[in-house]
Amino acid sequence: MALALGDERGRLRARRRRPTAPSGRPERDLARLADDARALVAEGGASWAEVAAIGLSLPGPYDPERELVCAPPNLPGWQAVPARAWLAEALARPVYVENDANAAALAEWRFGAGRGFRDLVFLTMSTGVGAGLVLGGRLHRGLAWGAGEVGHAPVEWDGEPCACGMRGCLEAYVGGAAWTRRLRATAEEGGRMALLAGGRERVSPEHVLRAAAEGDAAALRELDRYNDYLARGLVGLVFTLAPEAIVLGTIPSAAGDALCLDSVRERVSRRIWPGVRERLRILPSALGPDLAELAGLCAAFEGLGIEAGPAAGLASA
Amino acid sequence: MALALGDERGRLRARRRRPTAPSGRPERDLARLADDARALVAEGGASWAEVAAIGLSLPGPYDPERELVCAPPNLPGWQAVPARAWLAEALARPVYVENDANAAALAEWRFGAGRGFRDLVFLTMSTGVGAGLVLGGRLHRGLAWGAGEVGHAPVEWDGEPCACGMRGCLEAYVGGAAWTRRLRATAEEGGRMALLAGGRERVSPEHVLRAAAEGDAAALRELDRYNDYLARGLVGLVFTLAPEAIVLGTIPSAAGDALCLDSVRERVSRRIWPGVRERLRILPSALGPDLAELAGLCAAFEGLGIEAGPAAGLASA
Repeated sequence: MALALGDERGRLRARRRRPTAPSGRPERDLARLADDARALVAEGGASWAEVAAIGLSLPGPYDPERELVCAPPNLPGWQAVPARAWLAEALARPVYVENDANAAALAEWRFGAGRGFRDLVFLTMSTGVGAGLVLGGRLHRGLAWGAGEVGHAPVEWDGEPCACGMRGCLEAYVGGAAWTRRLRATAEEGGRMALLAGGRERVSPEHVLRAAAEGDAAALRELDRYNDYLARGLVGLVFTLAPEAIVLGTIPSAAGDALCLDSVRERVSRRIWPGVRERLRILPSALGPDLAELAGLCAAFEGLGIEAGPAAGLASA
Repeated sequence: MALALGDERGRLRARRRRPTAPSGRPERDLARLADDARALVAEGGASWAEVAAIGLSLPGPYDPERELVCAPPNLPGWQAVPARAWLAEALARPVYVENDANAAALAEWRFGAGRGFRDLVFLTMSTGVGAGLVLGGRLHRGLAWGAGEVGHAPVEWDGEPCACGMRGCLEAYVGGAAWTRRLRATAEEGGRMALLAGGRERVSPEHVLRAAAEGDAAALRELDRYNDYLARGLVGLVFTLAPEAIVLGTIPSAAGDALCLDSVRERVSRRIWPGVRERLRILPSALGPDLAELAGLCAAFEGLGIEAGPAAGLASA
């Protein structure tokens, strides 16, 4: 859980992170969150009168019409929780909720790699894969906030099973959880990746990157496969949206050159058309460790309107 | 070439269609178009003072920055033609150009199956496949007007070759030209489709539809394959944009029940998530034979702004 107090220029005046640690009782979890927010505002030397709004960046699923958090995998016990209404009452301030990929897209667009673009796709690639779409300088949320679920667009029809119950989703190939499962099932015992990880059952994407940097053939094959499927997903996005920029978060930004973003760019370039090819930018996230905090802030700015004053951001990690 | 004089409520006061008949000299073609426009306005009983603007709905490729028509396949000799500027000068009226899929999307959104939706994808499926995206009540054009080129999003990586030079594009499976080529190469001589067409080399999508309606097994397999690939394309669109409605033009609207739109809907439903599944509408175009004319008008309205007065529309077929 990332909490921050910040202003409309993205300056963080106070911040803290703590484990989500759900108690199984959402009221109690939210009361604790409200306490954290109060402490943070005091710590930042601000008064509550200065807090214009609170932004919540939350993983799905969220029911935007009824304003209910609907059982996110990392919050057991949170069935149909009116988090916005409860926090707004507890803190006596407007509270705005945004899907985490959308909030992160806004953060990269306002403060990060997406500054200056009108049309931007931010792709979050951690455990799962999702996108936030800023089109014409506006968030596009879609039906039931379902836009940007590009992690579940098919890249191999009837391909690998995905955690969502479908098959062949992009996330089943390039999501961190799916990739880790695959690595543990297929890495060679005694191979470089398993040695670096201290056992095949502990291999994770970071060991692929480290082994690949050493020139290990199996790791390079894994990276190749990863980049190939990532490129498939990006090509579909480019033909659909022709955005000015695609910003890649988490795995690609942490991996840097090891993931060979250039190799992804080249694969995408080969499969798209001139006109777009020369101008499309594929960029790593620029906000790195501040992304979650700034995403929370941006959820507040979005609710308040662009010329927003100071706001407190609460970003659920 | 579809030409129409109409007003902001989509009422057509005069119209004519003629073959594009390019002379090889764009100046001459445009002068003829200007003559047609003048005749049409007179025929509609309007004065030139009443004509607020002229809309041109054009197939790509178009260079929106330099305002140049760049060699559309159906207009030989049209290399880098400043059609907007020439017509504006010849007719002394503002001229607005729009990509044909975008203009058709606007027409369905204003006057057809897309009325009342904020987020709409119009898919034109004739010789080729393209989309117009109305998101948040606004056209999304993308880099180099490249948004909505979903006919070239991959549905089978490294699959069938496409006319665009890539492989596995949606258009290579459900585009009219590609489908016709496939049918002529694979239809059985003496089979029902070939008999209806008067020879295997004359088989076209309409014969598939007619033979399928009679229960011919080969035609039903062809339809099945068509619907399957169409569904793949739609699923990718839904996970990316979660639009309220997808409107299918040309082949599906002409085919009606024979194409089994219900079968497409069912295939898409199986591969998307609840929340969107219940609310997404997949609809045939409602404008039928007026689509090209209204698309031209909508190109003018788009240039003028929504509250536009009377306008003349020129739609290149």
